[in-house]
Amino acid sequence: MIIVNTGNGKGKTTAAIGQIIRSLGRGWKVCLIQLFKGRKFYGEQKILAKLQNLDFYSFAPKHPFCFPGVSSEEVAGECQQALRLFDHIVEGRKRYQLIVLEEFNIALRDGYITLKDLFYTLDKADSRTHVLVTGRGAPAKLIRKADMVTEMKEIKHPFKKGISAQKGLEF
Amino acid sequence: MIIVNTGNGKGKTTAAIGQIIRSLGRGWKVCLIQLFKGRKFYGEQKILAKLQNLDFYSFAPKHPFCFPGVSSEEVAGECQQALRLFDHIVEGRKRYQLIVLEEFNIALRDGYITLKDLFYTLDKADSRTHVLVTGRGAPAKLIRKADMVTEMKEIKHPFKKGISAQKGLEF
Repeated sequence: MIIVNTGNGKGKTTAAIGQIIRSLGRGWKVCLIQLFKGRKFYGEQKILAKLQNLDFYSFAPKHPFCFPGVSSEEVAGECQQALRLFDHIVEGRKRYQLIVLEEFNIALRDGYITLKDLFYTLDKADSRTHVLVTGRGAPAKLIRKADMVTEMKEIKHPFKKGISAQKGLEF
Repeated sequence: MIIVNTGNGKGKTTAAIGQIIRSLGRGWKVCLIQLFKGRKFYGEQKILAKLQNLDFYSFAPKHPFCFPGVSSEEVAGECQQALRLFDHIVEGRKRYQLIVLEEFNIALRDGYITLKDLFYTLDKADSRTHVLVTGRGAPAKLIRKADMVTEMKEIKHPFKKGISAQKGLEF
């Protein structure tokens, strides 16, 4: 099954983390491939790193939007590496029941990877493997292809009142 | 800060679980008070039970909608117990940085607890304690009071195609 968490609100990543915890609780093997998130930046990463049956990869920790010094080519290269890893995993013998592609919607939006390449691997995936793709602005074609889609819609956010991201809550 | 996860889509509970994991990763102390969820029914509970700095309570495991044999009075009594526990916690000396009130929106909707009683405790809470309330159909007054609100909106769900809830994904 293909699952998509998108929208402009809080909860796309935390719902993916919660999904991982739920699946691990069922004895599933889970793979998390994260983009644009420094491996040590997010609070959850410390807990995730200790959990059994979870393989955790991180690519392109610095998005050029937040780190203007980083070149787009470099980021594109790393995103494509992440996609190739996903492809190897799907092709390989090690099976996961859940693969989370964190912020891949952003990589699609910014042209670092193509929908064609993502679909190429998704189409090969074992039907018993669930793939969860997160990030705002999921492309319409991905939404059409997906089996389950949730839009995390911002109704209210303290950023709007000028309160900046809080450690422990937003990261 | 008061945070609300509401809406008809998947992700309210998983985002709360993910939030708990993130907060624990920052060394926060967290309390989870769950309604309408059998303590051993959800996959994530096995993992949560093992985590340090998380206190986890469960009340009213059987909602009359799913278990018609259960009386509303019994459920109301248990929901009110859960609310009293929340009040004791807020009054007490043991401080949490995050308290999650899982499915309390449902208890409000069904009249098992009142908004007045919930607000009574919320208004007493230490400003350094974040309270996250989940469940579909959050009351408008709670949304007005909250600082951060996300609507998890269902765009697509396999239930619609007649596929039932899958172990590891939905529970």
